[in-house]
Amino acid sequence: MNPHHPAGWRMAAWRLLAALLLALAARGAGAQAVLPSWNEGPSRQAILAFVDSVTRPGGPDFVPVEDRIAVFDNDGTLWSEQPLYFQMIFALDQVKAMAPQHPEWKTQQPFKAAIEGDHAALAQAGTEGLLKIVAVTHTNMTTQAFSDEVRQWVASARHPRFKQPYTSLIYAPMRELLDYLRGQGFKTYIVSGGEVEFMRAWAQSAYGIPPEQVIGSTFVTEFQMRDGKPVLVRTPKLDYNDDGPGKPVSINKFIGRQPIFAFGNSDGDLQMLQWTMAGPGKRFAGLVHHTDAGREWAYDRQSKIGRLDKALDAANRGGWTVVDMQKEWKRVYAFQ
Amino acid sequence: MNPHHPAGWRMAAWRLLAALLLALAARGAGAQAVLPSWNEGPSRQAILAFVDSVTRPGGPDFVPVEDRIAVFDNDGTLWSEQPLYFQMIFALDQVKAMAPQHPEWKTQQPFKAAIEGDHAALAQAGTEGLLKIVAVTHTNMTTQAFSDEVRQWVASARHPRFKQPYTSLIYAPMRELLDYLRGQGFKTYIVSGGEVEFMRAWAQSAYGIPPEQVIGSTFVTEFQMRDGKPVLVRTPKLDYNDDGPGKPVSINKFIGRQPIFAFGNSDGDLQMLQWTMAGPGKRFAGLVHHTDAGREWAYDRQSKIGRLDKALDAANRGGWTVVDMQKEWKRVYAFQ
Repeated sequence: MNPHHPAGWRMAAWRLLAALLLALAARGAGAQAVLPSWNEGPSRQAILAFVDSVTRPGGPDFVPVEDRIAVFDNDGTLWSEQPLYFQMIFALDQVKAMAPQHPEWKTQQPFKAAIEGDHAALAQAGTEGLLKIVAVTHTNMTTQAFSDEVRQWVASARHPRFKQPYTSLIYAPMRELLDYLRGQGFKTYIVSGGEVEFMRAWAQSAYGIPPEQVIGSTFVTEFQMRDGKPVLVRTPKLDYNDDGPGKPVSINKFIGRQPIFAFGNSDGDLQMLQWTMAGPGKRFAGLVHHTDAGREWAYDRQSKIGRLDKALDAANRGGWTVVDMQKEWKRVYAFQ
Repeated sequence: MNPHHPAGWRMAAWRLLAALLLALAARGAGAQAVLPSWNEGPSRQAILAFVDSVTRPGGPDFVPVEDRIAVFDNDGTLWSEQPLYFQMIFALDQVKAMAPQHPEWKTQQPFKAAIEGDHAALAQAGTEGLLKIVAVTHTNMTTQAFSDEVRQWVASARHPRFKQPYTSLIYAPMRELLDYLRGQGFKTYIVSGGEVEFMRAWAQSAYGIPPEQVIGSTFVTEFQMRDGKPVLVRTPKLDYNDDGPGKPVSINKFIGRQPIFAFGNSDGDLQMLQWTMAGPGKRFAGLVHHTDAGREWAYDRQSKIGRLDKALDAANRGGWTVVDMQKEWKRVYAFQ
């Protein structure tokens, strides 16, 4: 073929067209492989039917790309939350790491209990005790220093049951769902009770969710000049508790749009799901139901962590999608 | 031409290629016409040089697309702020519109002054008086109701000097700058002391900035069920004052990344500019200097609104870009 000859150019044009057609065909084939870790159950069907209806151009339920906002709780929805919220395990690990610099903790609760792994004493310390532990491990440092500590922990810590990094305990089916939605023009957000900088330190690599799409609880943070250089310092004062009714409020504050798709797993997600379903047009609300003691955990109405009670009733009343993890997920974690 | 005949197809392929080449050529020509409302002055040069250096692949200052965060103050930076912040004019207009339902305001300050347009009495009412006016006009209503009121006002109100809608008083050169940066892969944010929902109601159409990229001051907002339907209700309690040192804090809270480009016009932007310049690599800080009493206004160190004093000193010390509006802008508003 001689590209300088008119016939050569024609051939090149033909090849270009053929390549375009092949690329389109490949995209079509890819569409058959969406959500591979989901069994052909009602949840997978409901997700695909919803996405199809809101993305079909000219269809009655079409939603423009900029309004395709999907929000996800994190703990228990995108990754596991047992035997304790992983952020709490991070805090306890940090107390142990900091203990040599704090000899007074040997006799001082709740730090003594944290160092000794005394779960009964920790439980007795209650919310107030846990907040003390969170304060000393999460605040009185710059945002940069905290992010660095989280990243070090994520790289080195191992989950007690699975002996895997905590980021290996993200749910493979939910990771696929995030990718699938983004491929369909959705913007995916985390809206979690977890502290925002804790999640941002690993959310991009674990979920493909950038820092500006991670919404969470916050500490009051201050702008300070240190040696002529500006820094942001995290103070121990809680700024915002992004849980329950706090979730729709923070969604409005940060996103300024009402989501059309929301996924949670506990009563802390109820108002976020209600708010998502309250808008006009087609909407999707989903709950991850922890039914799989073998591969993950089984808990709902009685659990101290991730209690799913009122939101389960609301889901049953409203016809929301409830994912039976045991029946509907081919695998829970990517390593399984 | 017969598209069913092989030669017809070849012709169609040729036309496709020709159209592609024309489109590419048009893009090339477009690149020569960036920032057309800017004179060939130092500010335009500094902007183009900065953007060129951070977007050149393989260059020493290259910044990946996801980190190309640009933040802009709004009042006095993207649109005018005289004779009063436009949001304040909105509030005063709303008091007048609400007055028939509030006969008690006829004798009650600061409402009496607002209704009568008595600027001396308004000035005497001070910040506390203004906050009262903002509270009654901005809160105790749903987020939806407030947005609707702002949109109505923006559509109907006219600026006293220019007899134009307030959104016609956005600066044409800055609107071009927003477009130019977005074309170069930047994500453009507003970071303003103005109330966030006030700006979101028109920022998309005026600036091409979507609601999730508008950061501002906020009122405490509550999730409520009304007749079984969830709503978000704005309360009169100030939640966050997004000004001065509040700006870098909110940038971190909402974006979670340090911007590489920031533009302001007053001392309220100083810490945002300092925070932007504090990171590693090439960074850009700009100030709009109001030097044009003829086409806009001229004010800086002595002004009550948009005072530019400490930030001007910092700009001179730091070699930041200070835009001399009179000399460097071919036009201020698009209608001029």
